[in-house]
Amino acid sequence: MTITFRGVIPPVLTPLDESGGFDERAFERLIERLVARGVHGLFVLGSSGEVAFLSDGERARVLASAVRIAAGRVPVMAGVNDSTPARVIDQVKLAEAAGVDAIVATAPFYARPSAAETEAHFRLIAAATELPVFAYDVPVRVHSKLDPAMLVRLGLDGVIAGVKDSSGDDVAFRRLVMANRAAGSPLVVFTGHEVVVDGALLAGADGVVPGLGNVDPARYVELYDAAVEGDWARAKELQDEIAELFEIVFQASGVSGEAAGLGAFKSALAHLGVIASNRMSQPVPSLDGDTVARIAEIVDRSKPLV
Amino acid sequence: MTITFRGVIPPVLTPLDESGGFDERAFERLIERLVARGVHGLFVLGSSGEVAFLSDGERARVLASAVRIAAGRVPVMAGVNDSTPARVIDQVKLAEAAGVDAIVATAPFYARPSAAETEAHFRLIAAATELPVFAYDVPVRVHSKLDPAMLVRLGLDGVIAGVKDSSGDDVAFRRLVMANRAAGSPLVVFTGHEVVVDGALLAGADGVVPGLGNVDPARYVELYDAAVEGDWARAKELQDEIAELFEIVFQASGVSGEAAGLGAFKSALAHLGVIASNRMSQPVPSLDGDTVARIAEIVDRSKPLV
Amino acid sequence: MTITFRGVIPPVLTPLDESGGFDERAFERLIERLVARGVHGLFVLGSSGEVAFLSDGERARVLASAVRIAAGRVPVMAGVNDSTPARVIDQVKLAEAAGVDAIVATAPFYARPSAAETEAHFRLIAAATELPVFAYDVPVRVHSKLDPAMLVRLGLDGVIAGVKDSSGDDVAFRRLVMANRAAGSPLVVFTGHEVVVDGALLAGADGVVPGLGNVDPARYVELYDAAVEGDWARAKELQDEIAELFEIVFQASGVSGEAAGLGAFKSALAHLGVIASNRMSQPVPSLDGDTVARIAEIVDRSKPLV
Amino acid sequence: MTITFRGVIPPVLTPLDESGGFDERAFERLIERLVARGVHGLFVLGSSGEVAFLSDGERARVLASAVRIAAGRVPVMAGVNDSTPARVIDQVKLAEAAGVDAIVATAPFYARPSAAETEAHFRLIAAATELPVFAYDVPVRVHSKLDPAMLVRLGLDGVIAGVKDSSGDDVAFRRLVMANRAAGSPLVVFTGHEVVVDGALLAGADGVVPGLGNVDPARYVELYDAAVEGDWARAKELQDEIAELFEIVFQASGVSGEAAGLGAFKSALAHLGVIASNRMSQPVPSLDGDTVARIAEIVDRSKPLV
Repeated sequence: MTITFRGVIPPVLTPLDESGGFDERAFERLIERLVARGVHGLFVLGSSGEVAFLSDGERARVLASAVRIAAGRVPVMAGVNDSTPARVIDQVKLAEAAGVDAIVATAPFYARPSAAETEAHFRLIAAATELPVFAYDVPVRVHSKLDPAMLVRLGLDGVIAGVKDSSGDDVAFRRLVMANRAAGSPLVVFTGHEVVVDGALLAGADGVVPGLGNVDPARYVELYDAAVEGDWARAKELQDEIAELFEIVFQASGVSGEAAGLGAFKSALAHLGVIASNRMSQPVPSLDGDTVARIAEIVDRSKPLV
Repeated sequence: MTITFRGVIPPVLTPLDESGGFDERAFERLIERLVARGVHGLFVLGSSGEVAFLSDGERARVLASAVRIAAGRVPVMAGVNDSTPARVIDQVKLAEAAGVDAIVATAPFYARPSAAETEAHFRLIAAATELPVFAYDVPVRVHSKLDPAMLVRLGLDGVIAGVKDSSGDDVAFRRLVMANRAAGSPLVVFTGHEVVVDGALLAGADGVVPGLGNVDPARYVELYDAAVEGDWARAKELQDEIAELFEIVFQASGVSGEAAGLGAFKSALAHLGVIASNRMSQPVPSLDGDTVARIAEIVDRSKPLV
Repeated sequence: MTITFRGVIPPVLTPLDESGGFDERAFERLIERLVARGVHGLFVLGSSGEVAFLSDGERARVLASAVRIAAGRVPVMAGVNDSTPARVIDQVKLAEAAGVDAIVATAPFYARPSAAETEAHFRLIAAATELPVFAYDVPVRVHSKLDPAMLVRLGLDGVIAGVKDSSGDDVAFRRLVMANRAAGSPLVVFTGHEVVVDGALLAGADGVVPGLGNVDPARYVELYDAAVEGDWARAKELQDEIAELFEIVFQASGVSGEAAGLGAFKSALAHLGVIASNRMSQPVPSLDGDTVARIAEIVDRSKPLV
Repeated sequence: MTITFRGVIPPVLTPLDESGGFDERAFERLIERLVARGVHGLFVLGSSGEVAFLSDGERARVLASAVRIAAGRVPVMAGVNDSTPARVIDQVKLAEAAGVDAIVATAPFYARPSAAETEAHFRLIAAATELPVFAYDVPVRVHSKLDPAMLVRLGLDGVIAGVKDSSGDDVAFRRLVMANRAAGSPLVVFTGHEVVVDGALLAGADGVVPGLGNVDPARYVELYDAAVEGDWARAKELQDEIAELFEIVFQASGVSGEAAGLGAFKSALAHLGVIASNRMSQPVPSLDGDTVARIAEIVDRSKPLV
């Protein structure tokens, strides 16, 4: 049986309790709500899942928990976050042991690879697993951009099954979508950007991996459905509503992107009663006071389905 | 009488003859074709017009020529390219003397302004002219990004009339479009990116300033019309055709972006018989041999209306 | 008669009066003090001279004034700041008309040249003048780095006479110094960094172009003399004293580098009574209040000779 | 008994055999040569030790091996390379188990911390171990720069014992050295740059961590001794000789920095008979053919003591 990867696949947050430990009950409520609202898959241990901050032991717990809760209702994709192939492959083993359906790997980081080394990196990872491999293009974190032509080549060679594009480079994204189609669509292509999903789907994207989808999964699913039906005016209207909600990530000041963005998602979900705490992984501070109040106000105005 | 700025406004190339001088006859053929194909305005002395490479004397000739040829049929916007307010204002005087309808200014460059200094820069420029001022957001050249909130504030204060966004930051673009609308639309907002126009118009852009519009103005006009009519499937189809033509800019290797991109536009237009030479401003090399042949082949496949 | 370029050649500030106009009397006091304290040359219209903010008319006045005041006692080098060869050459004509002894040109900016285009840029400029040409390597402003091998090649070909290195890349600087020496020293090589002059001279630099030299020329001359005599312990001691004075550039917060750094130099000179005002070119704010007080305190502690 | 960290502490390479496994015998020859040539310490699992490419199992083997071979003759510092505090602390446990004398940690990477989060990161790491902690400032890999004032504050608070500066920012390095001295020298400060050691020592650095020290430890020790004796002319002469040898890292083209630089060090050591193979960790290609021949020629000309 082949699993289909497309549609709305949120990068699931990792809720923490007040002492900073993984809050599995909150994680369960979060995932149950996502599934109930119709998402097409779950991406755990992505950047939004604070993967870079979790120890291997914590990662293993999160993966096992996600697979248990999903229970085959939707596929589970797992981030295998580390700097180079040997270390990534150790993460792949963790993910395989947990029983996930696919893995998601970035280009090397800390290391400074040539384009050829990045390509070899993905080939080494894929050779080490039977699971479908997705390439995660995130230059703001790894400081190199994946070349569209390389991605299509890796797709044609059966090395990767798809791409999550968080590059913020909409021209390269369009070129990737078109090159993939011209090659017979070996790849499924996702955008990772919350507020340009209507345009990305119009351009031919197969789906979206939106961090904000943790907060408002129903609207993303509705947007995706409108796009599938070709109702672009409705898709744009929903995207605008979502973009208004996205303003929650711009409320904090003087803190890192992690604190502002992921902290806003967690604060919104705590406000909605889905998770218990907006606590972030050390050394990232949790949002508080006025910032949380402003976020709650935006959420209330936006009215996501709980 | 108020001039309307919206729709398709190509950044007009500056054709050169074989000795490197401004080729006014080719410029006339180029502009006549653009007007015949229905463009809604002309932007001369943009980056695509090689403004950074032209002396003040050459700039004055190009401006006067554009105004003469346009002859009031479409508005003429002029780039006023220099590093800081005092120098930009000298360029504004050149543009005013030529009789253009609007000016287009970037953030300071070579200088390294704070956000407040960038805002003051636009206020100083606007205070020196009666012409409408457009802000040109082009961080790959000036190395700072214009903040959406600042742009809307400048719009509300009557400092700027609009924005040409070549930032490549589609998230910021969406936020700009939405913030502008929430403020009562003081700005007209253009995208400067060739291959994401369908999505930008869907998001609410008022028009597009595409370098590739020099080569295929008719398809851009058709795309814009489809968007205005809400026929997004048709808009996307035209955008895909345009994106295939855009591959001409990726044919050269080992040269600068100027040589590869603008050189491709010039080579395409020379192949179409619109201009006489693909000659570039010194020190930028002209494309030749196989590169030009590959560009011609792509153009022939794409069949732009001449 | 051959002019020698070496030693301490400060990039001379451009004093402004309270209305923002060029203050020639302050300029005269500033230059007279520099000459009296033994500097070996003057570099006018550098980044420290706010060249990017001055109109062509203002630039011409500054150049003529500098040549008149220097009166042949020390050579005058002139910045010819613009984006590309045709425009730089127009600046060269201004400098020639004023009677300067050498010109100083950066790589292209706003444009995004390949390495070959940058090399052609310098060749075009040199071909247009009889004056010695110095290459000014300043990647934080022009966003490309000059390659040491290219610089030595241009030196051997008689295109450039020397280099002002403000790259902040001490490894490349060492390689440049060594490659130049291995080639028979066609170039004179200057560091543009204020607080690493002892190490640069130890490595083999021919001189220094320190913005802070406007404030404390005597110590820089003494440091240079100590290095020439091989008294490195004394050179280091002087460099440490200078580095303490350099803290003036870190006193402002929330403003641009221009405002903080050049504003500090102007504030220090106003405090010392050398110039009348710390006024900066628009849109750069002048420093005030507590910031100026802290700068004055550091200057008093440092006791530069007036 | 307090261990002193100063002088020449090479970041020891990790030799691999032809199948890509850790070559402990080569590692032993490498370390024995370093100790015999008088280095003052060993830094294992640095960037030069390919730490980012080694699995946890391989890292544990390398650490245990280094401690065994050093046998207390010189202190062993260990890189604890991972993205955030929780993960770094797991690496610290590996290092403690191996019996090293100090640990070396970078700022967070993949994550994008604020300055406050970076400071908290070091405090969390230090709170988890009794070992001295060194901060490793390497913005080209982690994409943030450590602030001199923060480093001195962490030194005064007993959080860190020293700094390895590979920032390439010589101005910030001078400011760090001076701020540290003004605070009573709570930190020992090392430069990580191979070819500016004379200037760094003149400025007041306590030592150097040079990758090239794997190839020519004797000259670095001699350079350090000359500096301690105040014989700066001799120090400069030795530095120039070393800089000529450093040209080995510029011989490869079209490959990553890892392949070119570390590959050159390994190729040089294989040529000298110290290690058996120049094999690099996957996916980094090993140097071959003409490149290796050019490296061997430079090494032969330079005549490092074996």
